[in-house]
Amino acid sequence: MEQVVLAMTVAYDGTGFRGFARQPGLPTIQGSIEDALSTALRVSGVETVGAGRTDAGVHALGQVVSFTPPSPMEEEDIERLARSVNALTPLPLVAKEIRSAGPGFSARFDALRREYRYRIVTGGAPPAFLGRYSWWVRKDLDADAMRSAAVLLKGEHDFRSFCVTESAEDKNTVRRVESIGIAYETHLGEECLVLRIIGNAFLHSMVRIIVGTLVEVGIGRKPPEWVGEVLSAEDRAAAGQTAPPEGLTFWRVEYPEDVWV
Amino acid sequence: MEQVVLAMTVAYDGTGFRGFARQPGLPTIQGSIEDALSTALRVSGVETVGAGRTDAGVHALGQVVSFTPPSPMEEEDIERLARSVNALTPLPLVAKEIRSAGPGFSARFDALRREYRYRIVTGGAPPAFLGRYSWWVRKDLDADAMRSAAVLLKGEHDFRSFCVTESAEDKNTVRRVESIGIAYETHLGEECLVLRIIGNAFLHSMVRIIVGTLVEVGIGRKPPEWVGEVLSAEDRAAAGQTAPPEGLTFWRVEYPEDVWV
Repeated sequence: MEQVVLAMTVAYDGTGFRGFARQPGLPTIQGSIEDALSTALRVSGVETVGAGRTDAGVHALGQVVSFTPPSPMEEEDIERLARSVNALTPLPLVAKEIRSAGPGFSARFDALRREYRYRIVTGGAPPAFLGRYSWWVRKDLDADAMRSAAVLLKGEHDFRSFCVTESAEDKNTVRRVESIGIAYETHLGEECLVLRIIGNAFLHSMVRIIVGTLVEVGIGRKPPEWVGEVLSAEDRAAAGQTAPPEGLTFWRVEYPEDVWV
Repeated sequence: MEQVVLAMTVAYDGTGFRGFARQPGLPTIQGSIEDALSTALRVSGVETVGAGRTDAGVHALGQVVSFTPPSPMEEEDIERLARSVNALTPLPLVAKEIRSAGPGFSARFDALRREYRYRIVTGGAPPAFLGRYSWWVRKDLDADAMRSAAVLLKGEHDFRSFCVTESAEDKNTVRRVESIGIAYETHLGEECLVLRIIGNAFLHSMVRIIVGTLVEVGIGRKPPEWVGEVLSAEDRAAAGQTAPPEGLTFWRVEYPEDVWV
């Protein structure tokens, strides 16, 4: 019998973590999950693959992590595993669901599309509740101008201007942005401007650089068309600042339906 | 010229505070606000009155605090005062607005009605983002049964069963609940059941004891009619537990329109 791979959907408040990727001696998402899985499954060295490697301070609502259990598991053992992981990980890291996928499944390489959301609080007064979950821009933003600029990023483009260029593994910087929307939402009673972006995959810091660039337009320092010039420049120096991590949430990942068994 | 009273609307994350009421040497809402006002206004011992004295861990979106400045202030000085308070208070305590009221105005005694909201996260998985802002009840709740029970609390009643009885100042325990609603909401991507309650005034711990009592009905341990019996008993021991503070937010206060100048 070929070995099934498990896909665990996890949510986390990234505030206290040093990012997703395991680092010896530091609190990381991957490290916490692998330690909990090793304890719960009574084996050492469980290895996981995440759909997206979030940076320090970035949150996730629907991150997906895949791993191969040491032996096949019944449905009820899988349900118990989710509860064990929740009992073993620090509270703001939560296993929401575990599904079974076919042999060879990878949370990273089998992903069809990913969604990120970025929250911005505007105006003169800081947020009381959204401080950990948003970027407080001390000015009012022109959401319509930001929408006109955002639409220029839709489609398949070389996003070299919108990534940390040193990253060797990302030599191919072409990505496809399928949708990008900007709307006001209210959470915990406080209003924020939310950017929702869906694409096949994202480069390192890509969403945060897109947000920092669109905010240049929102505050009126640049016209919407400027974002098209930034894209064409294929140069990180042409874009705006990298928006801070606390505003960003890795929202969800989509897989082909036929990966589940 | 009679002295105008200022009414400051404040929002705060109650997590790190020991409640509203000033206590020497402890981080409190009132203490932080009075210290900030004294510094900003360059006088010592500014005294404030709050519309509601929230307990340790309880949050506020629209608490109102009144105080008399040492001398009359121009509109632009008042706006600058709000910014100074925000610069001087710890970040999760925010001055949202300052309005001018007539002489003798009291944030507490002039209030017509107050609204509180209480958030509950249900089910087997803990919240990743709402942990500081909700009560995680590890079971599913029957919201319809809770609504049937809640309606029994509407109107003017003696709420002695729903308050901490030792409180000497609250000898009159008759209060008027004007509306009470229960509905699911989503905040930061996580679903919660929210109780919204509006009344003229509330006794100490009243909303939290109402929530703890309604949860007894929601988990099926008691029928909705039982809440009517609890009310009639006029005895704290008849009601359910006091729900934890982190789920509660003091939402807003309403004043007669003619108090503003």
